[in-house]
Amino acid sequence: MTTHVCLTARALGADAVWVVEKDSALERAVKGVVERFGGPFAVKTGVGWRKAMEAFGGVKVHLTMYGEPLDKALPKIREAAKGGRVMVVVGASKVPGEVYGLADFNVAVASQPHSEVAALAVFLDRLGEGAWARRKFKGGRVAISPSARGKVVVPLGAAEEE
Amino acid sequence: MTTHVCLTARALGADAVWVVEKDSALERAVKGVVERFGGPFAVKTGVGWRKAMEAFGGVKVHLTMYGEPLDKALPKIREAAKGGRVMVVVGASKVPGEVYGLADFNVAVASQPHSEVAALAVFLDRLGEGAWARRKFKGGRVAISPSARGKVVVPLGAAEEE
Repeated sequence: MTTHVCLTARALGADAVWVVEKDSALERAVKGVVERFGGPFAVKTGVGWRKAMEAFGGVKVHLTMYGEPLDKALPKIREAAKGGRVMVVVGASKVPGEVYGLADFNVAVASQPHSEVAALAVFLDRLGEGAWARRKFKGGRVAISPSARGKVVVPLGAAEEE
Repeated sequence: MTTHVCLTARALGADAVWVVEKDSALERAVKGVVERFGGPFAVKTGVGWRKAMEAFGGVKVHLTMYGEPLDKALPKIREAAKGGRVMVVVGASKVPGEVYGLADFNVAVASQPHSEVAALAVFLDRLGEGAWARRKFKGGRVAISPSARGKVVVPLGAAEEE
């Protein structure tokens, strides 16, 4: 599940992901995707959530089904962020209550139980207005060439990498 | 992961989910959420994917990182669906090649490896233009009342259930 969170963050426009639990295998897996499909995208595990939230100089958004509706929160988040950095906090079912207070916004992508991966995906898509679709990853060894019917993976030479 | 797919489908506007692998525990878990938070939402496991895709009278969309870009495919899908039924097919990494042929559209929510849960979430949000936010679930025992700071779960009496 955490791997899905990390790769979703990368694919949908985040620059980095921080994970509370120390997990070297997860780091290797995410770095492997970055080496293969490009970056930049940073992954760090073993991060203290309280310190990280307190030290973050930007807008902190906690995604939770208990939060205020996405449609209502999004304009306020954009105004608060002013184009600057945004930290999105997601967790499994048991998120410490303190997170609700440290966050600038507690936001519900549906007031229904579903998935932190889904919530993160919809939030990033909405926040960036789909800009992930135009993002160019750099330094990877391969890229997927979109196709209506098959699987086309293109090896990248040095020429395409800069 | 499959539970996340099912609950994401429910929360973001689908009417039902069909799962290839027979899984009674998954059925119970999803039905439990429907009893608690409302429906209608149907779950069926042990469904043959080939038969289901062949028999479906509507537009079949297979989400895959190898497919054509979402932004390009979405208007075509809307035109083909004409407001009618849409089947969204997602799988883990190994989807049988035949699925690409049985689908009317193979669509990439990012030509990057990430998560079938994330892809489903963004696709449903985009297809329905966020209409899930206005959906009223019926017959549940509780509902979440959106809150900027805390967790508010409201028990539903008979009066609210109709």
